[in-house]
Amino acid sequence: MNLPESVRIVEVGPRDGLQNEKQPISVADKVRLVDDLSAAGLSYVEIGSFVSPKWVPQMAGSAEVFASIQRQPGVTYAALAPNLKGFEAALAAGVEEVAVFAAASEAFSQKNINCSIKDSLERFVPLMEAAKAHGIRVRGYVSCVLGCPYEGEVAPEQVASVARELFAMGCYEISLGDTIGTGTAGKTRHLINVVGREVPRHLLAGHFHDTYGQALANIYASLEEGINVFDSSVAGLGGCPYAKGATGNVATEDVLYLLDGLGIHTGIDMDLLVAAGARICAVLDKPNGSRVARALGRH
Amino acid sequence: MNLPESVRIVEVGPRDGLQNEKQPISVADKVRLVDDLSAAGLSYVEIGSFVSPKWVPQMAGSAEVFASIQRQPGVTYAALAPNLKGFEAALAAGVEEVAVFAAASEAFSQKNINCSIKDSLERFVPLMEAAKAHGIRVRGYVSCVLGCPYEGEVAPEQVASVARELFAMGCYEISLGDTIGTGTAGKTRHLINVVGREVPRHLLAGHFHDTYGQALANIYASLEEGINVFDSSVAGLGGCPYAKGATGNVATEDVLYLLDGLGIHTGIDMDLLVAAGARICAVLDKPNGSRVARALGRH
Repeated sequence: MNLPESVRIVEVGPRDGLQNEKQPISVADKVRLVDDLSAAGLSYVEIGSFVSPKWVPQMAGSAEVFASIQRQPGVTYAALAPNLKGFEAALAAGVEEVAVFAAASEAFSQKNINCSIKDSLERFVPLMEAAKAHGIRVRGYVSCVLGCPYEGEVAPEQVASVARELFAMGCYEISLGDTIGTGTAGKTRHLINVVGREVPRHLLAGHFHDTYGQALANIYASLEEGINVFDSSVAGLGGCPYAKGATGNVATEDVLYLLDGLGIHTGIDMDLLVAAGARICAVLDKPNGSRVARALGRH
Repeated sequence: MNLPESVRIVEVGPRDGLQNEKQPISVADKVRLVDDLSAAGLSYVEIGSFVSPKWVPQMAGSAEVFASIQRQPGVTYAALAPNLKGFEAALAAGVEEVAVFAAASEAFSQKNINCSIKDSLERFVPLMEAAKAHGIRVRGYVSCVLGCPYEGEVAPEQVASVARELFAMGCYEISLGDTIGTGTAGKTRHLINVVGREVPRHLLAGHFHDTYGQALANIYASLEEGINVFDSSVAGLGGCPYAKGATGNVATEDVLYLLDGLGIHTGIDMDLLVAAGARICAVLDKPNGSRVARALGRH
């Protein structure tokens, strides 16, 4: 076995998590969550989204969140930006890095962002140019990499093609998202092998949802394939918009338990992380989605 | 990768699961559960325990369950027997196979069965002789193989020693139980390697608890080590006696989802299995512990 010595966790709870929670929470609660996460040792936190609050009311106030957090040295604070307008707003808010989002499934792209995959990629061009001009790094997400809620199976070659486009456009890292959590370990390894032909493997990240309980097995399989960046959400914030009552993003605590057990360095303190998750669950008045937090009786 | 082509799942829900649920359920409901499971294609169901109902009231009526189930060809119906008296009761009830239970942790053995590991193994000798005389196979469980609620870390060599004793005594298969679910993938692989020096690897089974969310990653790691028998509990029945509200046995549905995704044959029908889990959860009036069942909206 040749697992990575260290892993970077991209904490997406404040963005991907909270945008899928029913009710918006206050800016103060978001700021507290972000500060709790950086205090726990997370080195990368995606804390908002510069989209129209008409579409995603949960993400309103992202600029205020950026203005109020206690920025820690060594921590990257990022946000999602769907287009040039969103990028400019993110830049004005002091975002250090942005992320763009494309789908590997044509049907998902149409239903989710109302345009084809090709059109969605073309919209990123002016954003990428502006980002380059301002020295802002751009991370690329590809969704539905192991299944689509509308199309079912998604060909790894299709994922590789979208990943290659984002990479060619200037994204420094491509996060492969199993949006509906239907991926399993063997398919995950195959996907990494296929995408790895188009984008250097050390620039790929895994973004797994635990909807079918497979996320940690997929992460372990990805580690075996040399992947060393994973997205996760504290307390499993977010749920799954495609299956009521089901789990969405894998919980950061559970990923950390796996990595700690494997002796892989992350720089994250489990105690502080679990406390951060328990606090935001209390704010949201919802059950904690982390099995580790529940096992420790701190949920 | 060289994963097994097929896996045998040992369904422990009616025994290990139900014995950890708060309230006993009726014999009729247990019979229905067992019949649902065999109809779903499970080839091995552990359906009861011949212990004093004073100690485990949930297991009262095991003989009646054996008398009422619809026995299917090709299905093994088994029960736990702690000693010769239990074995004789199991034999009289028509049990096809029995299981004995030892701990890898001295403290757990003392607290759980009130004797040392050595004494617990000696108590099995007359049972093993009687079983041999009657042509009944005996399966051996070792608990606390990746951690103990009282001692913490458990040395793999200690697990190997207990496994070797059970094997030498005549157990045809040794199930390695991560009783508190603290094991992670790397430790699981190391354990299999150490125990595999004492007991042939193809006679080892994995029994994982999902308390910290690690079970499927551990199963995947075990498959990579050539293990092809796993214990699990439909709907994750049982919970965890050591952490209130936490998960215990990994859910059979979630294991099956992993194995189906890997193309590994089990002979189990997911639809029927999910239906069996949903039905018993309704009887118990408790949330379904299977993520797959929840994702499918059938819980």
